[in-house]
Amino acid sequence: MMSNISLSLDEIFILAKNVFFKNGCDEETSNIMADLVMKAERDGSLSHGLFRVPAYVSGLKSGKINGKGNPDIKIISASVVKANGNNCLAPVVLNKSIPELIKLAKENGVAILSITNSHHMAAMWPETEIIAEQGLVAIACTSYKPAVAPAGSIKPLFGTNPISFAWPRKNKPSVVFDMATASMAMGEVQVAKREGHKVPLGTGLTKEGKDTTDPAEIADGGVLLPFGGYKGSGIAMMVELLAGALVGDNFSYETAEKDNNDGGPPSGGEFILAISPDKLSDTDWDTHSSKFFDKMKSMGDVRLPGERRHKNRLDKGPRHINEDLVNKIKSLS
Amino acid sequence: MMSNISLSLDEIFILAKNVFFKNGCDEETSNIMADLVMKAERDGSLSHGLFRVPAYVSGLKSGKINGKGNPDIKIISASVVKANGNNCLAPVVLNKSIPELIKLAKENGVAILSITNSHHMAAMWPETEIIAEQGLVAIACTSYKPAVAPAGSIKPLFGTNPISFAWPRKNKPSVVFDMATASMAMGEVQVAKREGHKVPLGTGLTKEGKDTTDPAEIADGGVLLPFGGYKGSGIAMMVELLAGALVGDNFSYETAEKDNNDGGPPSGGEFILAISPDKLSDTDWDTHSSKFFDKMKSMGDVRLPGERRHKNRLDKGPRHINEDLVNKIKSLS
Repeated sequence: MMSNISLSLDEIFILAKNVFFKNGCDEETSNIMADLVMKAERDGSLSHGLFRVPAYVSGLKSGKINGKGNPDIKIISASVVKANGNNCLAPVVLNKSIPELIKLAKENGVAILSITNSHHMAAMWPETEIIAEQGLVAIACTSYKPAVAPAGSIKPLFGTNPISFAWPRKNKPSVVFDMATASMAMGEVQVAKREGHKVPLGTGLTKEGKDTTDPAEIADGGVLLPFGGYKGSGIAMMVELLAGALVGDNFSYETAEKDNNDGGPPSGGEFILAISPDKLSDTDWDTHSSKFFDKMKSMGDVRLPGERRHKNRLDKGPRHINEDLVNKIKSLS
Repeated sequence: MMSNISLSLDEIFILAKNVFFKNGCDEETSNIMADLVMKAERDGSLSHGLFRVPAYVSGLKSGKINGKGNPDIKIISASVVKANGNNCLAPVVLNKSIPELIKLAKENGVAILSITNSHHMAAMWPETEIIAEQGLVAIACTSYKPAVAPAGSIKPLFGTNPISFAWPRKNKPSVVFDMATASMAMGEVQVAKREGHKVPLGTGLTKEGKDTTDPAEIADGGVLLPFGGYKGSGIAMMVELLAGALVGDNFSYETAEKDNNDGGPPSGGEFILAISPDKLSDTDWDTHSSKFFDKMKSMGDVRLPGERRHKNRLDKGPRHINEDLVNKIKSLS
């Protein structure tokens, strides 16, 4: 039987910080990672919260991840920041490089942060949202290991390849999406299988490469498809290129070849773009876009991306965490 | 009965140039537009070739489009070019501003071209491809008039909102996609209706807002959906914001409110991003991405975006054009 423990946000932070610190992270890395985990739990982004901690620990234990490392940040032009992660966790790299990205984007209207040799296993909304909170538009993407078949194939090549977009709003939460370019996470397909639900056509293929609505046929040797057929396949390919050859790091298939498969996040690249609407637009972009969002919301059961997360955030109370997960994390400390 | 006329690429150019010139365009605008139309026919992009000419003429005749105008190009920072189209056709604005965009992107690693007050009714691959031919990655998007319901709504808000991406290759054609973020063009739904085919679930809704696979129910008072459900809806929203409030021009719903409905392309904005892989990557990005494309192509019936268009381009011979269309265009000259 699954039971939950009630933990305050501070307790979640301390639980996480302790396990990072005990597994070789320095004080700074431990704080950054614990903050990230706490905020994921706070916002209801559970698959990126405490759930991920054992995997991070695996990567730290195997030595793949450097918990004490220092990323190398270089400003190479008026609009480009390069960060070599030196095997640090991505949130540590982001913490040190995003302020530089924001500075350049505000000065010149647009800037790119090109990240290599970093380990990313978190959501991406934390980085796009923090940029948007500075009045900038942000787009970020990263690849992973092959899980998704390109349109026309029956074998995986693309990672789940998330893309996140954030639009700033004055005095309101940013509008932020952060979505896999896979039709669905394999974890969700497995849930559907367990609960006996069908999945929509286009979610994935059987091991023989046939269309199916049976999640078992996808989960047991089949393959996921990109969202939205060949169009989503184009977007997933774009993510491979932006977070791969463009920044000078691995494609998903190379990541899989090089990873030590310790269960922790593999090394890879990330692409982040920041744009200043103050520089680009000669109009009052905030009032203008607010009218658009009002219009969208007036059109039926339409939710602005990120709304649910921002609503969860208002609740400062304790969160209910799976007891087995808490015990497992304590045992790793 | 539908019959075709055989026209050489030069004859297509002359046919188009003549009609633009006779309808108030100056020599330069006529040449730019005729070249665009010829290249669309050459590449098999028929819905953006001669087929569009009567609509352009409508916009010129009503005075909405200025065929003699001069766009106003300003370099406002190390990485931002702003082009006020002054009611010129987008290809004319692009012709004058893209060289500036390319220059800034090569110098600084990334640049944006922000276009306002311009009339766009062409494909977008011409602009992303020309940027990629200079060794740069390009992303472009524009909105139009409402045709697509946001996820959760049963009424149109988004335009078909195309997004184009181009990846440069040395000594090979660029890899380029140019796709509507609508599930399908309404024209294609009408073809399915005429031919009695079903359309995939998710293509659109009936006028009551119900899911349907019957194209007639979508075409007759129903509405198109974004490709790929709520994820595609997020991408379509992003296009509205980038080509709207970010550059300082209309959202699709504002475009519809302001247009004179002469049938020609309405006034609006376009967003174009150019990135230099030479500046961003410390590796040999061309060899690296070539291996990725080879891998993709080896995985079954996988086509690289743009391949079919580049194959069509190799054929320098005449094209077979609908006779009624040719006669109609001649009558407008």
